[in-house]
Formats: sequence, C-alpha cells, structure tokens
Amino acid sequence: MNSIGIGLAGLGTVGSEVARQLLVNKSFLEKKSGASIDLIAVSARNKTIDRGVNLKSIDWCDNPEEFLNYKNINLIVELIGGSDGVAYDLCFKSLNNGRSVVTANKAMISKHGMILSELSEKNNLSLAFEASVAGCIPIIRALRDGLSATNVNKISGILNGTCNYILSTMRETERSFEDVLSEAQEKGFAEADPTFDVEGIDAAQKLVILSSIAFGIVLNNKNISTTGIKDVNLLDLVFAEELGYRVKLLAISEFRNSKLIQEVSPCMVSKSNQIANVEGVLNAVEVNTDLTESVVLTGFGAGDKPTASAVLSDIISVAQNKTPFPFGCQTKNLIDGSGVGQKEKSKYYIRINVIDKSGVLAKVAEIFRKSELSIESLLQRGRNPDEDVPIVITTHETDELTLNNVIEDLIKCEELLQKPVKMKII
Amino acid sequence: MNSIGIGLAGLGTVGSEVARQLLVNKSFLEKKSGASIDLIAVSARNKTIDRGVNLKSIDWCDNPEEFLNYKNINLIVELIGGSDGVAYDLCFKSLNNGRSVVTANKAMISKHGMILSELSEKNNLSLAFEASVAGCIPIIRALRDGLSATNVNKISGILNGTCNYILSTMRETERSFEDVLSEAQEKGFAEADPTFDVEGIDAAQKLVILSSIAFGIVLNNKNISTTGIKDVNLLDLVFAEELGYRVKLLAISEFRNSKLIQEVSPCMVSKSNQIANVEGVLNAVEVNTDLTESVVLTGFGAGDKPTASAVLSDIISVAQNKTPFPFGCQTKNLIDGSGVGQKEKSKYYIRINVIDKSGVLAKVAEIFRKSELSIESLLQRGRNPDEDVPIVITTHETDELTLNNVIEDLIKCEELLQKPVKMKII
Repeated sequence: MNSIGIGLAGLGTVGSEVARQLLVNKSFLEKKSGASIDLIAVSARNKTIDRGVNLKSIDWCDNPEEFLNYKNINLIVELIGGSDGVAYDLCFKSLNNGRSVVTANKAMISKHGMILSELSEKNNLSLAFEASVAGCIPIIRALRDGLSATNVNKISGILNGTCNYILSTMRETERSFEDVLSEAQEKGFAEADPTFDVEGIDAAQKLVILSSIAFGIVLNNKNISTTGIKDVNLLDLVFAEELGYRVKLLAISEFRNSKLIQEVSPCMVSKSNQIANVEGVLNAVEVNTDLTESVVLTGFGAGDKPTASAVLSDIISVAQNKTPFPFGCQTKNLIDGSGVGQKEKSKYYIRINVIDKSGVLAKVAEIFRKSELSIESLLQRGRNPDEDVPIVITTHETDELTLNNVIEDLIKCEELLQKPVKMKII
Repeated sequence: MNSIGIGLAGLGTVGSEVARQLLVNKSFLEKKSGASIDLIAVSARNKTIDRGVNLKSIDWCDNPEEFLNYKNINLIVELIGGSDGVAYDLCFKSLNNGRSVVTANKAMISKHGMILSELSEKNNLSLAFEASVAGCIPIIRALRDGLSATNVNKISGILNGTCNYILSTMRETERSFEDVLSEAQEKGFAEADPTFDVEGIDAAQKLVILSSIAFGIVLNNKNISTTGIKDVNLLDLVFAEELGYRVKLLAISEFRNSKLIQEVSPCMVSKSNQIANVEGVLNAVEVNTDLTESVVLTGFGAGDKPTASAVLSDIISVAQNKTPFPFGCQTKNLIDGSGVGQKEKSKYYIRINVIDKSGVLAKVAEIFRKSELSIESLLQRGRNPDEDVPIVITTHETDELTLNNVIEDLIKCEELLQKPVKMKII
C-alpha cells in the first residue's frame, strides 16, 4: 500500500478546508485512494488565527521549505498563491527533492508550468493542479484524460466567478458596477483588491493553462488579449436583455493551422446558448473537439469547499500513483504555441454616448459607411436635447481591423461623450 | 516505453470508428499516451461489409477469443455488446489471462462489473468503461477521479439520447410518439427494436453503473424502478410547456442513510433547470455532492465518433498505466447498496382523459380529497360533451403511496377513458 505524507503550505480558506478534510475524512480518502494519507506538517504566516480545524497534532513549520527535511513527507500541497516567490521556490525545490506537488496556483502554473512539469517527469513524480482552473469542475481531467483522444478546436468559458457574479447581480438588481463590486467584497465573493478578477487577468491565467492541455501546446501566456468588465455599464446589460443576449466575461481560445488565439473579454452571448444561463458565481467551460463536438461542464468555480474538493481529488490521484502527464502528454512533446492567429470575423455590439443634437446620427452612420462596416440594428432610446443619449449598434460580421477603424473614427467625433463600448456577439 | 497491442472485438459503427482512429491517428494517440499503440487483430461477425476503414494489414479472427493466443495483444477492446454471451466470456477470459479490458458495454458492466473489476484488481490489470455511459461525456472519470474526494448525494441525468430526441422532436414538431420514433429509426437515432431505449432499460443500466461509482456501493441492478416514454403523449408535452416545464426521461439516484433510491421515469422539469434545456440527442448528468454542490456535464451521449472518443481515451489511460480502480475504490471496499430507500416527497403532474359529462370533475376532486392529496392546479381545456376531454392536475408535495392510492381510485372511475399519466415534477 502506498503511503502519502503531506506538507500543506498555505492555510487560507481553501487550505484550512483541505486540512480539515484530511483530518476529518481521513478514512474516506484512504479508502478512495487505497493508500494511507497523513497530514504531517502545515505552514502559514499566522499561527494564531482560528481556522475552524484542530491542528494541534500536526507539525507547524514557519517556512514551508522545512517540509523537505521530513523524510515522511512525499507530497507538498501548495496553496500559498502568487506566480513566483515562496510558492514557486517551494514547488521547484520539492520536485527537485523527490516530492510530488499538488497546487491550486494558476498564476504559477500558467507562468512556470513547463519547468515544473518537466521536472516532475524527469524525477518520476506527480504534478497536479485540477484546482487551479474552475474550482470543483474537473475540467483539467476532462481535457487531459476524458477528451484525450480527440483534437480540441476551441475552448470557451466563464472562468471567473467574481465577474460572473457582478454581471449577473448588476442585471438582476439594476445596480451599477461599483455598487455590486462593493457588495461582492463584503460577501467575500471579491477580493479587497479586485484588479486580478475584474480586469480579466485571473481568467486569462486559467485560459492559458487550459489552452496548453487542450491543444497540446507549450504554455503561452504572452499572446492573450485581455479586457475586463470595468467598462461594462448597466445600460449594456439592459440593452443586451432587450436584444436577446446576456453579457458574460468569456475566455476563448482556438488553435488552427498552428496559430493560437486567446482572448478574455466581455461578450454578448445569445440567451439560447447554454453558457448565457450560467449565472452568479458559477463557472462553465465549453470544449469543442473533432470527435465529440460540444461538451459543456458547469459548477462552482471558487469557494473553499469546491476548490478543496479539487485539491483533494488530486491528492487521491497522487496516492493512487495515477496522475498522467500534467499537460496531457510528455512536456517535451508539446508543440509550439507561439504563432498568433487572426481572430475570426464576428458580429459586434457597440454602444456610444453622444450629445443629442441634430446630425449626430448621420455623422455616426457615415463613419460606419466609410469603413464599409454594415449595421445590423441601431437603437436610440429616449430624447435628451443637448444632453447625453446612448446609441446602440449591432454590426454584421466583420474583422477586428475594420471594427477598430470605426471605433477610432467614433472617438474622434466631437459629439462623443465617452469611450465607445464594444463587445463581441456570440 | 509501454507497448500496447490491441485486439478489437465488434466492428459496428463505434468499433469501425475506433479502428479507423487507431490506424489514422496512431501517432497522435501514441504521443498522448507516451506508449506505442498497435491494432493487432479485429473480430466481427461479417468480414465483407465496407466499414470505411482499411483493415487489410490487421489480422482477422472469426472468434475474438483467438486474441488470447496472441502474445503481443495485451489489451482487449470489447464493442460487441450484450450483458452475457460472447462479450462477457471474452472480457472474463481476457482479465483471467493477463489482458486489460476497455469496453463500452453498459449491459455487461451493470450486471457483471463487480466480478470483472475484482478480477482486474487481482491480476493488476486495467478495466475501463468510460464509453458505457453518456458517450463522450467524461462522467465516469468525473465521478471516479474529479469528484473522488467528496460524498455524492444525488445523480440525475438524461442518459438516453434516443428518448431525449423523441421527446424534443415531438414537442418541436407537434407529432406523435409513434411518428417521431419511426423517423428516429430512419435517421439511425433509434434501433430497429427500440425497446431497450424507449422503455428506459438502457438509461437504467447506465444509472446503475454511475450509482456504484458515485456512492461507492456494490452494483445494484435489482432495485431500480423503470418507466419508459411510451405513454408520454403529445398532450403532455403541450401542457408541460404551458405550465413552464419540459418532459425529460430522467435517471435519478440517491443514497441516504445507507439506502439507495434508483429511478428512471419521464419527469416534468422546470424550464429554469439547466437540464430542461438539454435537447435532442444530447445527454446531461447533474451530480450533487457535499463539497461541490451541483456539477453538470452535457454532451453527445451516443454516436460513433463521440463514443469512439471515450473508448480511445480509455485506451490512452491503459497505455499510460493510469487507470484507477474501475469503480472508484477497491472493489472489496465498496459498501452494501442493497437497502432500498423511501422516495422523497414530490409534486406530481397527473393527466386523465375522461368522458366530458356533468359531475366528472366533482368525482375527480372527491378522489383527491379522500386521500388528502392537495391539488395545486387543475386544467380542463376545451369542451367535448359526452366525449374525451383531458384533465391535467398538478399536486402539492406528496409521498408515492398517497399518489398511488389516488391513481388506483381514478382507474376505478368509470368515466376514465385510459390509464392516468403521472410524472414527477422536478
């Protein structure tokens, strides 16, 4: 029988839940894995916080690298976070010193995943990071194992629960971004510093990891276009509803002809699309492949228990000695993913706010005509002579260059009161 | 490097696609698995059919058990079907003779899974059957690996694409069951003998497999209540739409206090439920667990390519030597699942067709009153004096005993023109 001794670094909400489960559900986890699983030592910055779990019988290390002095620790669970620093040093040294690694660290894996993966293969150790993307949704396993035999063409998903919660709540309660963000922070659905979430960086890191596994490419965290949700206005959500869409922060990647396209941006998703109806803190990932067409997974993308579930499932796999290649094939066999592809044509939603005076509409229409960007629908609601009025335009399919030309011309227009808002229509 | 030699038994649409992929995508599959994968021999009843794949270089065995004479065959892929007979003999003998087994055979696994699983563990071989449930949806892996660390409370899903296609098409095209079934047979979405599908047996077999893995129990194919979709009338679909529901053949299992409830039956699913919007030949499974709450997976539940994808993913896992315990833990550690639980209270939809004459409604209402089954809504549409008129009733929450008493009393009612239709409301 395998024997697993764990050093657990990081005792935030997820780390504390993992520790609790390792202690309270020890026999269940051991039955599932067919191995003994012991939490040997923990490490965190603050020793005195009440974490709702009795850690008296567990060794405490002020520095997690002390784990490497324990002969009976053969698995490091890293829940510190951050792409570099303590977390990366710990994982690198662990894999270099005969310890397997389970982590939920998307920032680190999206940046250093290749080095860590190679190291784990070289030393015949496990590296697993199911919890790094989409919480409890087993999307890494789905791409790495369940859909391993088919060529993935495209992934698209809602990978950030905070943004999805904000967008859903804005729409439902007809409140502003700032207002809902504050509430989300109070409720613990958003961090005190929400930058990573609302600017789309968190979703981008997760997408980079999924792209690598799905397409069998070297991690590419350079070529990814990222737009957050800060400029999404309640107005846009109201117009979306009227036009038959829901606004979602989508992470989309495609790999065609050896060229990669990765993008995170708020999109108008048709309500008939399953993903449009994924609301609140839920996540969803749609995978399109040669053999299976569309497979969709939804579930809680964050939270202590869902994320702990993913971490613990990885611990079980390590205990069973059944973790496959971290990125779906040997790291050295991952192909080049640095070629940047051209985005496909798409319909777009554009909202501009202009001074309501005669001739504005003609001016706007002329800008579109000049670039030969064909308008599908135009909506001007209400009248506010000499004041602010929103104009909403949906376009026919167009390439990004044409769209950007139009946006630039619109910005030059003196009647324009703020930067135009543009969203892809899905 | 591992070296996998395959004997493939059964060359129907799925088997032919698996063979084709093994030949055409050999290098891709080998890259994914880090092993050499060779199709050595095939076996099927008819040697002369054109299967769209060139098998000239592959040995042909009239009897698949000849595979066991090949020293270089270490994996048997069984795609013959049927719970017993050739398929079971082949799998049993293979696992007894040092060969791993990959199969899509739900009938066999739901019946003989325990014996085969024990045998595979005893002989340190792999047994994998991702393709046996829900086609390309990696639901076995989700339950066995991704959600391994959390207690599953409930599974509910659309596990039969044929029934879902029939119900969706009936609703969309306002046609009868018989009419749509014929069309489905022409299109290849239903078998010439549709009994297994439309009577819910196929879904029941799949549910039995999922229950075992999800709850960690010994396979229980005895205690499962199965109702098919033959009695679902277009009328019910129309009423459902009006009441805010979709009719779905749901497979539901729960395990509470060591008692198992397994049921396959057509249900009225609220349109706000994600599963209500899974239409056509798609499958969907919702898993509820302690740590994750609801996780939902959707995708194509049948078809040559989706099912081949699942078979091939298992082949890759075997080649990597990374298939965990077939049912999620060692077979000997699966707990007793023979205790039968009491179904939870539920709201129900009841449709009766009666002769439209005065006093009928009072008689029906009195039957409900007598059993103290409280009516939530009653709908009688149109008037047909002295002829057939449907009455649709939705009830408040009730137990099954009370419901069945009412149904029995309704049947005794002389104005009743056919057996009442009842469906659980979800």
